[in-house]
Amino acid sequence: MILNGWYVAAWAHELDSTTPVARMICNNPIVLFRMADGKAAALLDRCCHRAAPLHLGRVVAGGIECGYHGMVFDNQGRCVAIPAQDTIPASAKVKSFPTIEKNQQIWIWTGEAGLADESLIPDFPWHDNKENWSFRYAAYKIAANHMLSIDNLMDLTHVAYVHRKTLGTGAPQAHLDATLATTVKDRGVKFISWMLNSVPPATFVRTLGFTTNVDRWREFEFIAPGTVIQFTGGQEVGKRAYEDDRRDGGYQLRRFHCFTPETERTTHYFSSVGNGHRPDDPAATEELFHEIDITVREDIAMVEAQHQELERHGEEGLMAIKSDATRIAMRRIVARLLEQQQG
Amino acid sequence: MILNGWYVAAWAHELDSTTPVARMICNNPIVLFRMADGKAAALLDRCCHRAAPLHLGRVVAGGIECGYHGMVFDNQGRCVAIPAQDTIPASAKVKSFPTIEKNQQIWIWTGEAGLADESLIPDFPWHDNKENWSFRYAAYKIAANHMLSIDNLMDLTHVAYVHRKTLGTGAPQAHLDATLATTVKDRGVKFISWMLNSVPPATFVRTLGFTTNVDRWREFEFIAPGTVIQFTGGQEVGKRAYEDDRRDGGYQLRRFHCFTPETERTTHYFSSVGNGHRPDDPAATEELFHEIDITVREDIAMVEAQHQELERHGEEGLMAIKSDATRIAMRRIVARLLEQQQG
Amino acid sequence: MILNGWYVAAWAHELDSTTPVARMICNNPIVLFRMADGKAAALLDRCCHRAAPLHLGRVVAGGIECGYHGMVFDNQGRCVAIPAQDTIPASAKVKSFPTIEKNQQIWIWTGEAGLADESLIPDFPWHDNKENWSFRYAAYKIAANHMLSIDNLMDLTHVAYVHRKTLGTGAPQAHLDATLATTVKDRGVKFISWMLNSVPPATFVRTLGFTTNVDRWREFEFIAPGTVIQFTGGQEVGKRAYEDDRRDGGYQLRRFHCFTPETERTTHYFSSVGNGHRPDDPAATEELFHEIDITVREDIAMVEAQHQELERHGEEGLMAIKSDATRIAMRRIVARLLEQQQG
Repeated sequence: MILNGWYVAAWAHELDSTTPVARMICNNPIVLFRMADGKAAALLDRCCHRAAPLHLGRVVAGGIECGYHGMVFDNQGRCVAIPAQDTIPASAKVKSFPTIEKNQQIWIWTGEAGLADESLIPDFPWHDNKENWSFRYAAYKIAANHMLSIDNLMDLTHVAYVHRKTLGTGAPQAHLDATLATTVKDRGVKFISWMLNSVPPATFVRTLGFTTNVDRWREFEFIAPGTVIQFTGGQEVGKRAYEDDRRDGGYQLRRFHCFTPETERTTHYFSSVGNGHRPDDPAATEELFHEIDITVREDIAMVEAQHQELERHGEEGLMAIKSDATRIAMRRIVARLLEQQQG
Repeated sequence: MILNGWYVAAWAHELDSTTPVARMICNNPIVLFRMADGKAAALLDRCCHRAAPLHLGRVVAGGIECGYHGMVFDNQGRCVAIPAQDTIPASAKVKSFPTIEKNQQIWIWTGEAGLADESLIPDFPWHDNKENWSFRYAAYKIAANHMLSIDNLMDLTHVAYVHRKTLGTGAPQAHLDATLATTVKDRGVKFISWMLNSVPPATFVRTLGFTTNVDRWREFEFIAPGTVIQFTGGQEVGKRAYEDDRRDGGYQLRRFHCFTPETERTTHYFSSVGNGHRPDDPAATEELFHEIDITVREDIAMVEAQHQELERHGEEGLMAIKSDATRIAMRRIVARLLEQQQG
Repeated sequence: MILNGWYVAAWAHELDSTTPVARMICNNPIVLFRMADGKAAALLDRCCHRAAPLHLGRVVAGGIECGYHGMVFDNQGRCVAIPAQDTIPASAKVKSFPTIEKNQQIWIWTGEAGLADESLIPDFPWHDNKENWSFRYAAYKIAANHMLSIDNLMDLTHVAYVHRKTLGTGAPQAHLDATLATTVKDRGVKFISWMLNSVPPATFVRTLGFTTNVDRWREFEFIAPGTVIQFTGGQEVGKRAYEDDRRDGGYQLRRFHCFTPETERTTHYFSSVGNGHRPDDPAATEELFHEIDITVREDIAMVEAQHQELERHGEEGLMAIKSDATRIAMRRIVARLLEQQQG
């Protein structure tokens, strides 16, 4: 897996100044907490005395106190107190990880610390734009390698099958006929797919009362190593949403996805759902979240089953089809970054 | 395990034309379904595109549709449709397994397909003889190697101990004194054991009102690789059931057993129980089934515990005793077939 | 792990003359039972015929009867009966383990039988002194290597942290200021720690109505390979408990601990709690037990979490602190005995 990259370790609201959070990230057991000044910290969740997990302790004035024999460590992992002992040896420290809080996310870098370049953290300003957007945050555990979930979002032909009874209902051909334009970047891939002059989904109609066909767009951008930024919506036919790229009206849905490896076989999925068409209506945000939550679970069931089968026999004998193009472009970028990582 | 042989993959009634059935057989993940014409099919449960398990899809006109991106495969595993793609490459196929429906069973051959000889499938015509026999079908999962269950049926001295509180109750010595005649065949072993002039079990009396002692027979035939056919019954003493081999009256029980390897450590046990003395009485069949179900679970508990111990230390230090003779004859046949398989 | 040593296999009351007890000890699956004369026996829980676990059988006149095909083994593991077979071959035997009943414990030796020296069994006469002591016996399963629990008892500074809300409440500094005197023996370590002129814990006050400060003692003796004997109490300041070592009044608590390896990763914890200040009051014993049971579970949670982390990365990068001194002395003894064992 890519280690020299930023993954979301937690939503900002998960960390408070009293209770540490334990989370395995990229095979590292990590304890997350906030220092007294609010600064987020991530340490190896293993006291340097007897390997007790630090998350069993508590947050105190100087940092985190081990719950076994009381040693205290600051956000750099330096030991600042040993009970009943006056001197603190230099060896008394635990590993710390570069940690940045941005756009309601706590980002972590578990690779080579010297390479941690803050400018590589994806932007998602809509999380902080509370006037125009109303977000709900969620976290899922997926029993599959994180790449399978990125694959999933890079090929939307799955909508007609995985979400046959939900998102994909009623219009399989419209999904298959959608346009597709893909842009490959240095550390990412972006595509936009339009379903022009198509029957609006039930959700659109219920929410905004569409009475005509719509032009629907689905824009997805993968940013290595684990983020996918989504902008989906629809506008009445005739408003030139497609022709003039005017996507500022109608149905407005933004989603932030980060697939953070827990291990090679398990993934933390941080997913937010943002309502941009009726941001002042909490019920609309809730409804949107619940509709999407069902489809998230459909995708999870599929990638977990796929993972089980890949665990058994790997990729042996598999073949690509036409709809894999964007997915393969994404995989090439990841392969290149992995090569760079291994030197 | 023996792969060049027929195992039961499912009862016929388990397959319908809408919902595929997933089942691991001899370490192969397999999807079972019926084509539109009713023909049973067994494919590797792994789409050749991205390894999605096919059983998550659905049965459609041309075969089975993958639930991830919609490819369709027929009963030979040939891809017959790829959404949004006109040509189907020759490489688009999944492995299929020889499959035969016979006597209410779906039989599968997971070994070398060219060797799949239909004449080797065991006959069990009583399943189809609904006038004289009333059957109930069951399937169990056993957390043990399948050979241990075949061992179990090849040495009935276990009845006095494993089934001490059920089948074996009250007459341990009668079980130990039973006659035993064994016939070794090319791909099987058959034995018949008589308990002459013995007290009828409570079940016999309750069902048929015996007032005298009975001559009881227990006939078991192992047919490689996993089938055991059982015919058990009892007739009043003096009716010459034993002397003239007249086993057409009295208490009549037939059972079909197939122990199909799921893996080396787990087994699908297909078990049917047939009532031949009161075939028109569904309550008698139910009662018979439930009595036998209890003993089946006693055997399963024993072989699972035995398996655990064999996993730990193998067969090291074990010894044979007199009652192992038929079991050992069965094991020799299996060993010979395994040798042939490995060439 | 140390195999040439005595571990508790069971409390005496667990064994009766009808139902065998199955227990994995030092990686050996063992069946424990009593012969007709009451003598405790421990055999390998694996019939020498087909590896069926003997604990699924029953205790009969001559020993234990296998529940599969009825072979019977005595307390030396010798086969004394094979159903339907007249002669018993010399090879028909299962391994037996030296077993001694003493002080309400069944002790077992799973190492080299010729080295089993009964004089090495720890004494704990208070279990049998029912006039002055009232004990309650318990057994816990711990998902951690047994050494971590012995570590735990050899460094009481953990009390202020692990038991912060229970035992350690209100007086962290008193715990840290406690005296400590350690004696290293050939196969053990003993220490006594005094908290002089300290506020009595709520329990002491509730039980005995202390109105002054107390001198509290905590005496722990490790006896290899797995036993820890504890004597804890407190007496009013001024009664010279410390100066004259008069520890026969006031609050009197004795505990017996044995940490018996189930495997390298799991432990049977035999723990008794003895009330010596109000031995005639069963409610006082119950109350004492329940208070201690809570702290036992706090320790178990900690060592299990610690074990998980040690499983991942071992002792790499760990450091000792001042409070480790007694623990390290204990570990040295164990290391020496392990070396002797390996020759």
